Amino acid sequence: MKFDADCIFCKIVQKQAPSSIIYEDEQVMAFLDIRPASEGHTLVISKEHYEGILDIPSGLLGRVHQVSKMVAVAAKQALNADGINVIQQNGRAANQEVFHIHVHVIPRHLGQKMKSLQEVQMVDYKQLELIADKLKSFI
Amino acid sequence: MKFDADCIFCKIVQKQAPSSIIYEDEQVMAFLDIRPASEGHTLVISKEHYEGILDIPSGLLGRVHQVSKMVAVAAKQALNADGINVIQQNGRAANQEVFHIHVHVIPRHLGQKMKSLQEVQMVDYKQLELIADKLKSFI
Repeated sequence: MKFDADCIFCKIVQKQAPSSIIYEDEQVMAFLDIRPASEGHTLVISKEHYEGILDIPSGLLGRVHQVSKMVAVAAKQALNADGINVIQQNGRAANQEVFHIHVHVIPRHLGQKMKSLQEVQMVDYKQLELIADKLKSFI
Repeated sequence: MKFDADCIFCKIVQKQAPSSIIYEDEQVMAFLDIRPASEGHTLVISKEHYEGILDIPSGLLGRVHQVSKMVAVAAKQALNADGINVIQQNGRAANQEVFHIHVHVIPRHLGQKMKSLQEVQMVDYKQLELIADKLKSFI
């Protein structure tokens, strides 16, 4: 599998950096965003390093989104989400910040505004672990 | 195939409503958004009527995103896009407006702000047809 030594998500895949993982299989991993736009905000990534939608193999992109669906279903059940935003940014012009493909799965509740992905703040891992446990029990 | 008589996207699939189609196969269709957030803003949908990520079959969701990748590649080539935003909204709480699953594929250029999906304006089909022709030549 192809990794990038400077990529934080490659480090997470290799368990060389901490993260609140809620799902993984041979090809795909899902973990909570350390800068959540809402409670349960999850990132779904391919384990292999690809930059984005242009270079990831088509079949693997399909798998990533199938895992996003699993996360969305879990978020509805575990967090009573009223809605789900799915966002995937490619290139600096599209506000991509980590250049390893990732799908944001963002649970939404009626009447609650979503934070912009540019203005989110880092939270504590311990806080994320509680939410990760809730989500994992529905995956 | 299951259609909803009141759904505008089901009408587009059945060619009972106009649209600037850039791709279709048995399961998936891609056409330009009549209210574009940027030039080339495309919607990719399943032909069969599903509301969103929660009820669409997993395999079909994968196919929809594989077509989104084709559109993204075409947008890069045909429109010199520097980036691509992929957005898929589920439920009123996530700003979904048409309740037939659709993936927004939005070409971006460095230095150009994207219009919010809530503030976009309708444009003329003739204008869209010119852009559709460009995109189709790269699909």
